[in-house]
Amino acid sequence: MMKLATRDNGERDGELMVVSRDLQRMVSAAGIAATLQEAIERWTLVEPALQERYLALNHDDIAGAQPFNARQLLAPLPRAWQWLDGSAFLSHGERMQQAFNLPPIEGVEQTPLMYQGSGDDFLAAHADIPCGNVEWGLDFEGEYAVLVDEVPAGCDARQALSHVRLVLQVNDISLRALAPREMKTGFGFIHAKPSSAFAPVAVTPDEAGDAWRDGRLALPLSVRRNGEPFGHQSGGEMHFHFGELIAHAALSRRLRAGTLIGSGTISGHDASKGASCIAEVRALETIASGAPQTAFLQPGDEIFMESRTAEGGELFGAIQQRVVMSS
Amino acid sequence: MMKLATRDNGERDGELMVVSRDLQRMVSAAGIAATLQEAIERWTLVEPALQERYLALNHDDIAGAQPFNARQLLAPLPRAWQWLDGSAFLSHGERMQQAFNLPPIEGVEQTPLMYQGSGDDFLAAHADIPCGNVEWGLDFEGEYAVLVDEVPAGCDARQALSHVRLVLQVNDISLRALAPREMKTGFGFIHAKPSSAFAPVAVTPDEAGDAWRDGRLALPLSVRRNGEPFGHQSGGEMHFHFGELIAHAALSRRLRAGTLIGSGTISGHDASKGASCIAEVRALETIASGAPQTAFLQPGDEIFMESRTAEGGELFGAIQQRVVMSS
Repeated sequence: MMKLATRDNGERDGELMVVSRDLQRMVSAAGIAATLQEAIERWTLVEPALQERYLALNHDDIAGAQPFNARQLLAPLPRAWQWLDGSAFLSHGERMQQAFNLPPIEGVEQTPLMYQGSGDDFLAAHADIPCGNVEWGLDFEGEYAVLVDEVPAGCDARQALSHVRLVLQVNDISLRALAPREMKTGFGFIHAKPSSAFAPVAVTPDEAGDAWRDGRLALPLSVRRNGEPFGHQSGGEMHFHFGELIAHAALSRRLRAGTLIGSGTISGHDASKGASCIAEVRALETIASGAPQTAFLQPGDEIFMESRTAEGGELFGAIQQRVVMSS
Repeated sequence: MMKLATRDNGERDGELMVVSRDLQRMVSAAGIAATLQEAIERWTLVEPALQERYLALNHDDIAGAQPFNARQLLAPLPRAWQWLDGSAFLSHGERMQQAFNLPPIEGVEQTPLMYQGSGDDFLAAHADIPCGNVEWGLDFEGEYAVLVDEVPAGCDARQALSHVRLVLQVNDISLRALAPREMKTGFGFIHAKPSSAFAPVAVTPDEAGDAWRDGRLALPLSVRRNGEPFGHQSGGEMHFHFGELIAHAALSRRLRAGTLIGSGTISGHDASKGASCIAEVRALETIASGAPQTAFLQPGDEIFMESRTAEGGELFGAIQQRVVMSS
């Protein structure tokens, strides 16, 4: 069991930190691994020492510990050599099809949808969301993601699942108005998916206890917009589990250590639990009344996303971001 | 002016090397920048010292020089935080549409086609091409690419072009049989675009002399398959120049230093000059005779790609790869 974060030390990849289970204290991982990328590349070698430091930190038995302060942190992995994002909750896809009036995609129940995303510039949990143009349909997407060590090409879903080392919480920022043109080309998203943001802490799957099961994180993600409840859907609703997503990604090539794979927007068929993105709510509104009422994100809007364990403890810490005009 | 490469020193990102203009000798860049990624992140700081070492190496006036041996090298950038590949030669797209019987893509003359590719595992110039399944339609794509330092969001094509620091030569390995399904989803390529290979040496644009003009590398790429001439099309035929490709990529987000942007398969309307990929030849055959005759790559096949300056000198060194079954 272990919780990790990355402190902003002025370097591009930051400094790897071990965080206490209650998110009250943290201590540098110096001497074990300088960065999270370095740790994931040598995971089996560094895991025991990180584990030991984590236990000592939890028992308050360690020198150099400092108060946990999410505002001093970068994304746990400030940039990724590979960021792949799935769309593993079928209800999200179904509603998006209605929202964008898209034809149904063949075989979505058998083959995961996934796109190659940009991982060069991830945002910290408290970083502003830049808005380049209010006409672009700025949206959030609450997701879970996994960080894997090296995955061999052609491995099956069960083997793939054994490569999951850490679980993370993501805000996959999306520009809805720019997506349909890009989807029509067949080449995927360049404009519609700017940099994603991550909750402050990455955790080993066992930190979620029984809620990590069948390759899914069966915990609700609480989403609030400007303080108002927006969604409370559970990661347990994933149609494809993370092992299936990883195996899909590795069909024709190995995945090098440090590849991040996202679940896609957390969604469920019970609409009373809301949604993890605006586009889905607009789709539901369109179905109900013929037109969307909820506006996309505007400068000044605040978005909050958090996942708690069955016992009520903080798992990843919260994503808390504000939208600002960027030009 | 400068030529750079990356020596395989057992580390994931290798050791940055300065290479002589004639590709006869090389020397470590130690003390200036450890890796190419480090160099591109601090380009304006390290460029003068790299330049000085390059001049000394060319004048044979330097300690520690060793014979240039492409087989000791990795890809110049062994992995990239971001790899974006355009499709900037319209004749390629037109023929591919016929090959795959795809509907024409709207606005291809105004808006570049581009996909987000996987950059976690680039292949060296002499690395085997793994073939997981002969039914996947294994193909090569000869391209040029540029490496940029940090590009601000929303910059125009002219400003974007000023961020080009190095030019590279790429073999964008493709699995043609897996592409149509992925294009239909609209999410782009996960299976159809495994890891690309790169020629041994990356060069500053001025190394190409007048052939670097209007944001394009106006030099033919010689492609041979099993020793037989396959194509000799010029990079000068790009419809969109590299500045336009970069500006397209940066429309809604900044690009962090070390982003690689590819031209897409080098292609031209003069079919007597052949093609830089098999799919295009198959498309031409289909147009001419109703069916393709040229087979996709098979285990044992060898592919050679090289670009020479107007004076006949080697620019990037050659890509020379052999196809092997990978499982």
